Amino acid sequence: MSRHFEQSAVTVLGLGPMGRALAGALLDAGVRTTVWNRTPGRDGELVERGAVSARTAAEAVAASPLIVVCVVNYDAADAVLRPAAVAGALKGRTVVNLTADTPDRARDTANWAAAHGIRYLDGAIMTPTTTIGTPAAVFILSGPAGLHQEHRPVLEALGGTHTHLGEEIGRAAAYDVALLDVFWTAMAGYAHALAVARAEGITARELAPFAKGIGAILPPLFDQYAEDLDDGTFSGELNPITSAVSSMAHIVHASEAHGIDAGVMRGAEGMTRRAIGLGHGDDGFSRIVEVLGRR
Amino acid sequence: MSRHFEQSAVTVLGLGPMGRALAGALLDAGVRTTVWNRTPGRDGELVERGAVSARTAAEAVAASPLIVVCVVNYDAADAVLRPAAVAGALKGRTVVNLTADTPDRARDTANWAAAHGIRYLDGAIMTPTTTIGTPAAVFILSGPAGLHQEHRPVLEALGGTHTHLGEEIGRAAAYDVALLDVFWTAMAGYAHALAVARAEGITARELAPFAKGIGAILPPLFDQYAEDLDDGTFSGELNPITSAVSSMAHIVHASEAHGIDAGVMRGAEGMTRRAIGLGHGDDGFSRIVEVLGRR
Ligand SMILES: NC(=O)c1ccc[n+]([C@@H]2O[C@H](COP(=O)([O-])OP(=O)(O)OC[C@H]3O[C@@H](n4cnc5c(N)ncnc54)[C@H](OP(=O)(O)O)[C@@H]3O)[C@@H](O)[C@H]2O)c1
Ligand SMILES: NC(=O)c1ccc[n+]([C@@H]2O[C@H](COP(=O)([O-])OP(=O)(O)OC[C@H]3O[C@@H](n4cnc5c(N)ncnc54)[C@H](OP(=O)(O)O)[C@@H]3O)[C@@H](O)[C@H]2O)c1
Repeated sequence: MSRHFEQSAVTVLGLGPMGRALAGALLDAGVRTTVWNRTPGRDGELVERGAVSARTAAEAVAASPLIVVCVVNYDAADAVLRPAAVAGALKGRTVVNLTADTPDRARDTANWAAAHGIRYLDGAIMTPTTTIGTPAAVFILSGPAGLHQEHRPVLEALGGTHTHLGEEIGRAAAYDVALLDVFWTAMAGYAHALAVARAEGITARELAPFAKGIGAILPPLFDQYAEDLDDGTFSGELNPITSAVSSMAHIVHASEAHGIDAGVMRGAEGMTRRAIGLGHGDDGFSRIVEVLGRR
Repeated sequence: MSRHFEQSAVTVLGLGPMGRALAGALLDAGVRTTVWNRTPGRDGELVERGAVSARTAAEAVAASPLIVVCVVNYDAADAVLRPAAVAGALKGRTVVNLTADTPDRARDTANWAAAHGIRYLDGAIMTPTTTIGTPAAVFILSGPAGLHQEHRPVLEALGGTHTHLGEEIGRAAAYDVALLDVFWTAMAGYAHALAVARAEGITARELAPFAKGIGAILPPLFDQYAEDLDDGTFSGELNPITSAVSSMAHIVHASEAHGIDAGVMRGAEGMTRRAIGLGHGDDGFSRIVEVLGRR
């Protein structure tokens, strides 16, 4: 692709809710931005705000030295990036892949990029679309540190914190998977709790303030469990696993008594009872981690 | 039991981590407190701090007009309260049951109490032992409002906020079950995340700061989902269910690729795919609540 196409600083491929938020933040920061999405028509508002709309992914790639990809998963990212015309246009450019997927897929994409002369950083976004462009946004990245340094100024136009987690390309995805595990498990628990509450005649707006209280007690416990685990203490002095499993059983019972599926909590109760069965009933809940990870 | 036994303001039955924290806070607040536990020897430190140690539950009950019960569950509470000598001693006194269990069990205990001339409030504690006696403690209660008013001053010696949720005796337990659902599901997710992270070479202390970041984004989302649900909007504009399920599948894959059981996330993914199968893929994750609660 010839040099005269390069009229932008950044190209954003993928205009779902997150891709649109990323492109919008770049535009707000005065960064010249080219956008493309598989399904046309998602860029109307962005074009009004100054974005250049590309007709094809190859054209979009040719427009900028830095290409940010944010689609649903790496099957989608592969479908966008790997066709010959796009791969050819990417040669010598930098791809920052902010799509969520597994560490294996990140490693696979890095290998593909290396084989095609494409410079590659892998990353993930740990906060909702509404945080993008604000100090609350959290980006994590991995890959060559020099490449990250080179693109850092323009990436920082996306707002928030940008943590380079290491050169190993799968590291950001590994953090991402673990953190999305916390997030989606908690959200599944909240959704289930709202269903049980509703069956008991409690509205979501009645439960929410107390649920936010539960949200507030989690962060200090996250620290405490991390220490328990890294130090191998697993103290049950303040809250033994046997007490936890009793509460879990109540939740399953109350849920199923209302005909509400309790599969998620049954899974949690099962792994907890297994830890007790292995002789850890007096330990703290952090012991579960060790039992889950047992080889 | 004759009047001269009444030398305390409050009796605490059950001296697990939480019972000890409750009795300790009462003593700190200068409330005369009698304590008892099924297994002897748990009250040493409390007695040093001024608690009266009762040899039997019946003796403990006879010592105070207000009896706080905090044991592992209502099977345990029944085992403590229902023997004839204890039930007889409880006549005319007030029991505040701060044990966690289901709404059904709370209702059953209230019926038993009424049949035995025992005044009864049901409640739950929504914060860890370390909060007891501090402003961070959260107590919820249900039952006769007048009875709550009567004992409120002494209960407030436990610290924190005390919310009377209504006269229906099962209401505090219904909130408790729903809130413990949020709590233990989130903790199960965090434990699983720590196991996956460890398998990827990430220590718990490395993950914890980012996990706390996830904890921080939950409360505003809890509000937003509550509005979505009560208003029936289920907007997927910022984060559709199809995007969520893709992340869930990555977590299951990354977990099982390391030989780590992913039963909890498989449960969450299953309920999410079911919502998509019912035609709600473009909706927000709050739609899950409606699908779970479907009759
Ligand atoms: N939304 C959030 O709050 C949030 C927060 C943190 C991270 N993330 C991550 O950001 C990424 C993007 O999320 P999102 O919220 O924008 O929505 P999304 O629903 O995950 O992704 C939608 C985007 O993926 C594209 N896409 C899907 N399949 C494709 C394919 N086979 N080929 C080409 N493009 C395809 C869509 O294009 P079409 O329009 O053509 O379908 C659209 O651009 C995801 O990995 C998500 O986990 C999102
Ligand atoms: N710990 C927390 O952070 C926390 C936070 C909020 C709410 N809670 C709730 O508070 C309650 C008490 O919890 P906990 O932390 O103190 O520990 P726990 O392990 O849930 O309960 C231990 C207490 O239950 C007693 N017990 C168990 N089975 C019994 C039986 N059959 N008969 C008589 N007593 C029996 C134990 O007596 P022995 O010593 O004789 O075994 C001990 O006093 C639970 O419902 C829990 O869910 C705890």
